[in-house]
Amino acid sequence: MAQELLATVLVNPALTADQSPHQDIYAVIDLGSNSFHMLMVKVVGGSVQVIGRVKRKVRLAAGLNENLVLSRKAMKRGWECLALFAERLQDIPPQNIRIVGTATLRLAKNVKTFLKEAEAILGQKVTVISGEDEARIIYLGVAHTSNSDTNRLVIDIGGASTEVVIGAGFNPLLLSSLNMGCVTYLERYFADDELSEDNFSRAIAAAEQEVLTIASQYQHTGWQMAVGASGTVQAMQEILVAQGKDEVITLSRLEDIMQQALACGRMEQLTITGLAQERKQVFPSGLAILIALFRCLNITGMTLSGGALREGVLYSMLPQLQHTDVRSRTVNSLMVRYFIDQRHAERVAEMAAELANQLQSRWDLNKFEGHSMLKCSALLHELGLLIEYKNHHHHGAYIINHSDLPGFTRAQQQLVMALVHNHRADISREIIARQTMTSVLLTVRLTRILRLAVILSMRRRHEVLPQVTISSKGEQLVLTMPAGWLEQHPLMRAELEQEVQYQQQAGWELLIK
Amino acid sequence: MAQELLATVLVNPALTADQSPHQDIYAVIDLGSNSFHMLMVKVVGGSVQVIGRVKRKVRLAAGLNENLVLSRKAMKRGWECLALFAERLQDIPPQNIRIVGTATLRLAKNVKTFLKEAEAILGQKVTVISGEDEARIIYLGVAHTSNSDTNRLVIDIGGASTEVVIGAGFNPLLLSSLNMGCVTYLERYFADDELSEDNFSRAIAAAEQEVLTIASQYQHTGWQMAVGASGTVQAMQEILVAQGKDEVITLSRLEDIMQQALACGRMEQLTITGLAQERKQVFPSGLAILIALFRCLNITGMTLSGGALREGVLYSMLPQLQHTDVRSRTVNSLMVRYFIDQRHAERVAEMAAELANQLQSRWDLNKFEGHSMLKCSALLHELGLLIEYKNHHHHGAYIINHSDLPGFTRAQQQLVMALVHNHRADISREIIARQTMTSVLLTVRLTRILRLAVILSMRRRHEVLPQVTISSKGEQLVLTMPAGWLEQHPLMRAELEQEVQYQQQAGWELLIK
Repeated sequence: MAQELLATVLVNPALTADQSPHQDIYAVIDLGSNSFHMLMVKVVGGSVQVIGRVKRKVRLAAGLNENLVLSRKAMKRGWECLALFAERLQDIPPQNIRIVGTATLRLAKNVKTFLKEAEAILGQKVTVISGEDEARIIYLGVAHTSNSDTNRLVIDIGGASTEVVIGAGFNPLLLSSLNMGCVTYLERYFADDELSEDNFSRAIAAAEQEVLTIASQYQHTGWQMAVGASGTVQAMQEILVAQGKDEVITLSRLEDIMQQALACGRMEQLTITGLAQERKQVFPSGLAILIALFRCLNITGMTLSGGALREGVLYSMLPQLQHTDVRSRTVNSLMVRYFIDQRHAERVAEMAAELANQLQSRWDLNKFEGHSMLKCSALLHELGLLIEYKNHHHHGAYIINHSDLPGFTRAQQQLVMALVHNHRADISREIIARQTMTSVLLTVRLTRILRLAVILSMRRRHEVLPQVTISSKGEQLVLTMPAGWLEQHPLMRAELEQEVQYQQQAGWELLIK
Repeated sequence: MAQELLATVLVNPALTADQSPHQDIYAVIDLGSNSFHMLMVKVVGGSVQVIGRVKRKVRLAAGLNENLVLSRKAMKRGWECLALFAERLQDIPPQNIRIVGTATLRLAKNVKTFLKEAEAILGQKVTVISGEDEARIIYLGVAHTSNSDTNRLVIDIGGASTEVVIGAGFNPLLLSSLNMGCVTYLERYFADDELSEDNFSRAIAAAEQEVLTIASQYQHTGWQMAVGASGTVQAMQEILVAQGKDEVITLSRLEDIMQQALACGRMEQLTITGLAQERKQVFPSGLAILIALFRCLNITGMTLSGGALREGVLYSMLPQLQHTDVRSRTVNSLMVRYFIDQRHAERVAEMAAELANQLQSRWDLNKFEGHSMLKCSALLHELGLLIEYKNHHHHGAYIINHSDLPGFTRAQQQLVMALVHNHRADISREIIARQTMTSVLLTVRLTRILRLAVILSMRRRHEVLPQVTISSKGEQLVLTMPAGWLEQHPLMRAELEQEVQYQQQAGWELLIK
């Protein structure tokens, strides 16, 4: 796999000298009911690198009246935005551009008026996609950016429609586009700017009517995990993190946040810890829709996906990035981008897996997919070496903390970050404790295993790895080296003795025999 | 140049699949009079990447008696350390290894006893180099890691000898190795652990005697810049930074720090803001030697070099990295390592140079080599895109702040860091003000030029760059666009209008015409 990606990077047009300009740049424009977005990317090291984003809150759906006629004023806001996009777009090859319109443009009876001018401005064709196509593409965007090996429920609350999909791998099984959205519901149920029980109840009840049309079919097909891909879900996750919770959205947490919104009384007084200013306006309506979905579909927990419609459109232009395991595509790409010594990384991962397997019967490492997180952390532990040696564990953690990591939830990303940060030298209990989204005990256990795997592999050669035995008694670890081994390997002995000190300072007992 | 480096990265053995292990790893061991060091590196993207360091304070020179016989005890400390190094060394191809001994081994009459056992432990030959060779190699190490196009004086205070060199480019002109060092002077003048006027005076006087043997010849040849490469100079720089000074070491600053040391009274009470625990023991003796050098050679200012003996030995094994312009080797390597769009980077650099040239008559941008720093910042401004788009200016600053940048002084590195941090979006006056080592006014001026160059080049195409005129009146900037240009380019107009706001918030007036 790493070899394939290596091939990708070596033939990456970004690295070759004589190309016509921007052949390697791709652009997706999404004419949404709430905002218009332009996303520009190139492919680096076998994954997508964003090189530009432009976003304008056009709020097109607000210009759609009850007769489904789009106002001239709303169209004008849209065209002005497109004139900005057009300036960048003209430098990108037409075959690398996709422009899609969604619910509001689907619904508007006078859509042709809008499209004629829009296409003249852009010099490109605009495709208004059907609700089912929108759901299909959103699913593809989620599949390309989230990890799953089971049935997954995907929900995307847009400005004027909400897509609900069940799929497995890259294949959608059920596709629906419901006629409800955070902009249309804002206009319909919160027009008086009151954050009242009454407004919320009416919005939730209306949304429930929509969801009930699909509920039994969806529940019959079933799913093992639910992910959300919209601004509402992202806002909820930001609120949970800011309020010290883990990342999983549940119905009781949604209802708690609704109570916090109700307590604010009116829209202009809306302040919830963790809710960004720019998300406030459409948050109550989106929240009502999300609560209806949770109630009618009996969703027990939901996490945030890294991608949706734009990513789905983008990846459909990039068939070379099709990959059944999104998480390993991400990890392999990071190894290529940061010039990691891949054989050494794999050696450390194997050693870590060996230690983890020996400990599994007493230490349950499976929460948050502990074994997989340990492997990813081992593969990425030298990420920061490209910056500098002395604190490369800190640099690696910085990179992981700030990168988009398709295939990892935010909690998993934080776990890998903590492991890489603590893979050598002083242990920061603060880094482990700060991230409230994963279990401290799991993080500590995985950290200790990774540190030992790194030391035991220090010679960077497979044939000199010691055959070790490791066992635990509560949190005490006993590492048994082969007879006579320590005497023959004074540097590793010194490193292991130092490691006993490091772990002791962190309050963890380690014995070397 | 970038193309050559690209070729280097594409044939980099670290990226090819079937190689014998560690053909691409190089090791240098330096058996110094104070510490033994092992440095392991590989070559990535046309520059050296450190993958391991081991250091032990063997303090060999302390075991050399007045008859120049090295004690058995000191030898044993050395051998124990070498046994640690040997464990890693056996995995590296012999032709990629160099092991050098310096002053103490040069002086010791019983050196053969030490070497016989040392070579048996290491399985490798140890070369004890002459003082002149040591000076030559140190100079090479400095030339490979510092920028200079004039005569440069290089000083390295070791444990038992001090090397003094004048050279130009990669060629040493005068080479000396003086019989004084921070370990031998510690034993000789600070044996009673008193930080007294008397001890300092005797140490300085003795060092002056040594320096006077070469002073007139060196002053006759002359130099335009002085760099230091030893722990003493590094400690002094850390102290200056911690005490809020700029990076330049001067005689008055050295004497001020000596007063701070005198005020501590005794060695075990030595506390100076910015002086690390591990550097304390040999700091007073090194300081005395440095004061003598400043006084006898009339050195007016000195900065720290990034490399010395070990780097000189290392680069002599890597002829492909010979490069007359160290700074551009560093910048080009960063562009390759971080997959920067080089043509776009060069376009922004040209635009920035054009603006800077128009402003040069009123804005003096030459302090700290302002024009060169602006160019380097423009070439590196997209460094952080490899991590993530939204805050890539912050990520780029992080990378620059933490990387070893041969060819840049610490102050220049801080300047480039501030420029990259502030090249887009919100301006952090704090980042600009925090770095006391460069001029705030210069940083502000260069920042404003870089930001405009980035916006004016936003379409990433050479043929659509506007022909602009820029002028200054005090700190007010007036940017004049071609007639009708803004009307035809609404996205750039929006960006420039936003930029007027950003600069206004930072307290800087910008007019667009």
